Amino acid sequence: EQIPYIHTRLTVEESEKRSLQFYNQMNARRSVRFFSSDPVSRTVVENIIRTAGTGPSGAHTEPWTFVAVCDPDVKLQIRDIVEAEEEINYTKRMGKQWVADLKALKTTWVKEYLTEVPWVLLVFKQAYSTLPDGRKRTHYYHEISTALASGLLLAAIQYAGLVTLTSTPLNCGPALRSLLDRPQNEKLLLLLPLGYPSPSATVPSLTRKPLEDIMVVV
Amino acid sequence: EQIPYIHTRLTVEESEKRSLQFYNQMNARRSVRFFSSDPVSRTVVENIIRTAGTGPSGAHTEPWTFVAVCDPDVKLQIRDIVEAEEEINYTKRMGKQWVADLKALKTTWVKEYLTEVPWVLLVFKQAYSTLPDGRKRTHYYHEISTALASGLLLAAIQYAGLVTLTSTPLNCGPALRSLLDRPQNEKLLLLLPLGYPSPSATVPSLTRKPLEDIMVVV
Ligand SMILES: Cc1cc2nc3c(=O)[nH]c(=O)nc-3n(C[C@H](O)[C@H](O)[C@H](O)COP(=O)(O)O)c2cc1C
Ligand SMILES: Cc1cc2nc3c(=O)[nH]c(=O)nc-3n(C[C@H](O)[C@H](O)[C@H](O)COP(=O)(O)O)c2cc1C
Repeated sequence: EQIPYIHTRLTVEESEKRSLQFYNQMNARRSVRFFSSDPVSRTVVENIIRTAGTGPSGAHTEPWTFVAVCDPDVKLQIRDIVEAEEEINYTKRMGKQWVADLKALKTTWVKEYLTEVPWVLLVFKQAYSTLPDGRKRTHYYHEISTALASGLLLAAIQYAGLVTLTSTPLNCGPALRSLLDRPQNEKLLLLLPLGYPSPSATVPSLTRKPLEDIMVVV
Repeated sequence: EQIPYIHTRLTVEESEKRSLQFYNQMNARRSVRFFSSDPVSRTVVENIIRTAGTGPSGAHTEPWTFVAVCDPDVKLQIRDIVEAEEEINYTKRMGKQWVADLKALKTTWVKEYLTEVPWVLLVFKQAYSTLPDGRKRTHYYHEISTALASGLLLAAIQYAGLVTLTSTPLNCGPALRSLLDRPQNEKLLLLLPLGYPSPSATVPSLTRKPLEDIMVVV
């Protein structure tokens, strides 16, 4: 069934103003690796995840689950799993070039922030779902859809004045999936600590590519 | 080199208010398939793409190129390529279940909007780049990074009062890449018409999953 799409048109000036405002806000985002233990209200976490859930998805499958961990014991277990795998990643799996690429970011396998931060968000993508009659429904483009929704999640986090670190804990998926009791059809896509930066937080001094390096007008 | 991360903390009330506001704004987004030919200012297109370029990326590789097409001839060629492949997709490649899943959305292989809309955005992911000394630099997680940036792009489009349709034109990548003269290291991820809805635009009557179906608190 089709319904009319109701749209309120902004003036060109308003549209230009808002697009610049939003750019400035998003451009202030940085990946933060040093967190304060100050709490974040559950209402905000819910609104952020609701926002991610507004994303488009192939054939409207909405192939995502967001696990929000605030239990200190579970955060400690997550940290143990991630640190054990990351140590192997850094010393054995990643190769010299990769480790060299990361040197400027000063990342290591120690992830203190995972037990410091009030919330750890784990984004799972669903490869398929099970229909009421028991048949499997394939989720076309489930990884792209879940990553797009995670982009909205990042925007919502930034808009709400919080900080995060986007991470893809290499090889931790199966252990984290079983720790969090997620079903067979789900795979871990991202792990994101969510909170406030610690007062002494630093970030790598990075610049972003200028517009002419990322945009081509035809 | 590390620099201090400067952060202005919002009050809990402000954070809750902003997170709800942003949710409401993003929740008004729909994929639109009927566009007006009214122009969109290039400034807005630039700000939207700048916003996408603020996204995080594995090892800060920024592995994306956004091609913004406004030339009518090129839009016509894009339409020809997409319609030719989509007809084969619908009639031969997709399989019964997929076509059935799409029935509710009333999508077809005719893409009138591609010549009607003022801009067509094509998002390319870069698998690698070439260093000044000629060596290849692998872009870890380039697809996830580019999809995350595209999530920010969708948020920016919505925030600026414009509409789009997220699409992944199956099997059109190589022909579009060569039409737009993109280099070997780039592959098409998404194709997004960008503009205003036509006055009579309709959308499928869809609902989104409630929070409890997408969020798990531990
Ligand atoms: C990765 C991806 C691919 C998509 N491909 C198409 C497409 O080829 N054609 C189309 O009409 N819609 C496409 N869509 C749009 C979805 O059908 C749409 O997002 C979904 O039905 C939910 O509707 P909404 O975006 O209005 O919330 C795609 C969406 C995503 C995320
Ligand atoms: C898919 C993906 C995976 C990432 N993985 C890690 C990670 O494992 N550890 C880490 O410290 N940073 C990780 N990052 C963060 C990037 O290093 C960071 O986004 C990049 O250096 C740019 O910095 P910015 O986010 O502050 O702009 C990842 C980012 C993305 C998009």
